[in-house]
Amino acid sequence: MTATTTASEQAVRPEVQALRGYTEQLVAIRSGLALLGWDQKTKLPRKGHADRGRQLGVLAGVLHERATSPELGKLISAVEDVDADNVEARVMRRSYRLSTCLPAKHVVEFTQAAANANQAWEEARERDDFDLFAPHLERVLELSRTSAELYGYETEPYDALHDLYEEGMTAAELEPIFAGLRDPINELIEQQPEADVSALTRTFPLASQVEYCERIAAVMGFDMEAGRIDETVHPFCSGVGMHDTRLTTRYQSDWLPASLFSVIHEAGHGIYDQGFDRLGLPRTIADAPGLGMHESQSRMYENVIGRSRAFWELEYPELQRAFPTALGDVDLDSFVRQINAAQRSLIRVEADELTYNLHIAIRFELERAMTNGDLQVRDLPEAWNAAYEKWLGLRPPNNRDGCLQDVHWTSSFGYFPTYTLGNIYAAQFVEACEAQIGSFDDHLRRGELGPIHGWFDENIYRHGRSFTGREFVERITGGPISPEPLLRYLDGKFGRSA
Amino acid sequence: MTATTTASEQAVRPEVQALRGYTEQLVAIRSGLALLGWDQKTKLPRKGHADRGRQLGVLAGVLHERATSPELGKLISAVEDVDADNVEARVMRRSYRLSTCLPAKHVVEFTQAAANANQAWEEARERDDFDLFAPHLERVLELSRTSAELYGYETEPYDALHDLYEEGMTAAELEPIFAGLRDPINELIEQQPEADVSALTRTFPLASQVEYCERIAAVMGFDMEAGRIDETVHPFCSGVGMHDTRLTTRYQSDWLPASLFSVIHEAGHGIYDQGFDRLGLPRTIADAPGLGMHESQSRMYENVIGRSRAFWELEYPELQRAFPTALGDVDLDSFVRQINAAQRSLIRVEADELTYNLHIAIRFELERAMTNGDLQVRDLPEAWNAAYEKWLGLRPPNNRDGCLQDVHWTSSFGYFPTYTLGNIYAAQFVEACEAQIGSFDDHLRRGELGPIHGWFDENIYRHGRSFTGREFVERITGGPISPEPLLRYLDGKFGRSA
Repeated sequence: MTATTTASEQAVRPEVQALRGYTEQLVAIRSGLALLGWDQKTKLPRKGHADRGRQLGVLAGVLHERATSPELGKLISAVEDVDADNVEARVMRRSYRLSTCLPAKHVVEFTQAAANANQAWEEARERDDFDLFAPHLERVLELSRTSAELYGYETEPYDALHDLYEEGMTAAELEPIFAGLRDPINELIEQQPEADVSALTRTFPLASQVEYCERIAAVMGFDMEAGRIDETVHPFCSGVGMHDTRLTTRYQSDWLPASLFSVIHEAGHGIYDQGFDRLGLPRTIADAPGLGMHESQSRMYENVIGRSRAFWELEYPELQRAFPTALGDVDLDSFVRQINAAQRSLIRVEADELTYNLHIAIRFELERAMTNGDLQVRDLPEAWNAAYEKWLGLRPPNNRDGCLQDVHWTSSFGYFPTYTLGNIYAAQFVEACEAQIGSFDDHLRRGELGPIHGWFDENIYRHGRSFTGREFVERITGGPISPEPLLRYLDGKFGRSA
Repeated sequence: MTATTTASEQAVRPEVQALRGYTEQLVAIRSGLALLGWDQKTKLPRKGHADRGRQLGVLAGVLHERATSPELGKLISAVEDVDADNVEARVMRRSYRLSTCLPAKHVVEFTQAAANANQAWEEARERDDFDLFAPHLERVLELSRTSAELYGYETEPYDALHDLYEEGMTAAELEPIFAGLRDPINELIEQQPEADVSALTRTFPLASQVEYCERIAAVMGFDMEAGRIDETVHPFCSGVGMHDTRLTTRYQSDWLPASLFSVIHEAGHGIYDQGFDRLGLPRTIADAPGLGMHESQSRMYENVIGRSRAFWELEYPELQRAFPTALGDVDLDSFVRQINAAQRSLIRVEADELTYNLHIAIRFELERAMTNGDLQVRDLPEAWNAAYEKWLGLRPPNNRDGCLQDVHWTSSFGYFPTYTLGNIYAAQFVEACEAQIGSFDDHLRRGELGPIHGWFDENIYRHGRSFTGREFVERITGGPISPEPLLRYLDGKFGRSA
């Protein structure tokens, strides 16, 4: 029991009821779009792809029309007029403002430029030819800088774009956070033994992987009756509708972590989304407030829980039963050591939990400089390589393993920091949670995730996007966003004392 | 080469271009609806079903709004003004008229009544309790009779409803067609040996069925790169988008025909739909003109081709390889005899090719009487049983195996005759086709479906819905719709001479 009440529990005013009704229409159209997108990446026949873009475009147009209608503006105002502090009006007002402040012409231009950039990027990466990509990156950057002016900002253009993904967070705040990660993490890297992942590269039959992934998602707390798991190239989680949350993963017969940890990661996102439905939130607020908060859950399940020795004490025999040939002779300690192997590397998506945030620090530094006009696209490759030397002591041998590795800049600047914010939030929440329910490890050792789920339901999921990431941290920890709990956690896991 | 040209080959007027552009928007929204519907029956997580109805409802509302907009009316008029005989304007005018002539209030009432009736029907059938269903059937019938008045008709209300599915066809025309089937078919039934399907009830491993069904669909001519096959309860074919046509089937380990012939049937529908995309038809006309025409293709592939000895001469060894245990000791003649076993039965969906049309004749007679006010809902059970005695010489022991067996009347009157029209059209087209390319059997024996595909491309698929079913028959055969070719075909297959 708690003293606070959520929007869904209050007596609902007719003005709020009307706003919710309209929102349900938006959400239903968004369901159609989400399903078309999910299907595109999992089931769509090869020849059907050409037409899917048009279908998505038309429905996106329908959604945009309704998300920017004067009618919606009036519904929001009506709530504001009777209840100035109404949470649902506040979050809908923000969405409405973000949807309406870019002219349609600019949105169309941007969409086209991003599509072209994506195509050019694929070819440029394939051929390791930055010059192919550069003019497209310049165009997307130029349009993004225009977007920043249209959205508006107080200090620097980058803040306007980052705010789309993480409300109210500024580059000036992020800078010292990232700076504080560099030396402690590099010190920990020095302490790591040579990485050995030989047990994870054996043969893992695909049918057994599919079956085990369904099990592990359910063990983590993902409701398989309100979701499903399908195969794709790049794993993702998509909330298609109420009680319909879909995870995807990829299966590699000679690399178990590809499916195992992507499913646990996406299940973390899914557990968050399923919470809104399970707890009956109105659709106005049934979402995470930003990507950092969403990532906090995926990272927590993947790393804090999914790579802990305590969790595998009970679960590892099940994994061995699923893969008797590959893992029958691998003991628990070896398995846990291998899934936590850490070392310096060049590719973000293959990076381990320890070094991952330094890859993000590099991208934050570079995209901030580009957005603010302090770094020219033509200078990006050299700046990228210099940043890798500075942060990780490594220099990429080519652009394919350097500044051409990620797709993000074909369509968005300001997204990257949310990955690290997710790790930071997760560590802060876990410390706060443990202070109330006791050590995660003790619960995991007994296979009891219930108290963990209950704490997150109560403190986070039931509030939807009523608070920003920062507000959640402040409510829960009583203090500001801080990287200290993350550093403590990493030190506990990767430090000499571990 | 042919002397006629389709709409897509003519120089396209700007007015037509504008109409096509608008239609593409409608088609894209319909794609979203089609995918939501396909997903609902194949992939949707159990708990997601409650929300799917709302998503479909909202998108259906968006579609209805755009399909009835004054803007569309003006676009059609603009084409009519410059080209009074324009085919695209004609078919779009008809769609527009049908969409706009029912008031929204009536549509909503009907949708709600049909949903209630569906629920009541499921329970009534389960419990074999007609009284549970009767008031709902009465309500749907009453609203359907109102629809008939709103659509308008010349002779009897039933014609208005049947016209939705089969443009321009009347009950007065259908009556003698059905009447002419009764005695010849009953005579053929008398000639059948006792049915033996023992080989088809052996064990057919599901994984092999899935694999073989993908093969047989492709052998028939269904492009698996522009479509897919999934599992469902009631098989269907859904055209989700351009080059994206989806078949569904059900797999029973102890009854091979459940998957085998439903896949061939649905592939027939799919081959028709894929033709529109392959031949590049504008979306205004890229559809069958009615359900009878669509059914002509599914029935032709299922029965004329898929149950012919000639087809299996080449293909049966492949089927035996797929199911060596079940079919290794079953010779070709036994297999062909078993897949063509025919006898009187009570359940339409389990009926064989020979007796199927009599089940339809019964339903036509009863739904026509109900729609025209000549049969009261309370008298339906007795009327049903009497009709089965009259047409098939059998009396259902209960309503579950009688008038409660089909779902159609929970939402539609006037649909049933299209099944038999499909069989009639198929037989007429096959005779016309054989007159030009030679006997189907000779082609099938050589595994050459190309000439058959080519003839249907040229004579039917490339015209989309430019002609009605009746017009297609007249163009192709030079004569009227006639059941004689169907009776000749059935006599050739099931008669003493066969």
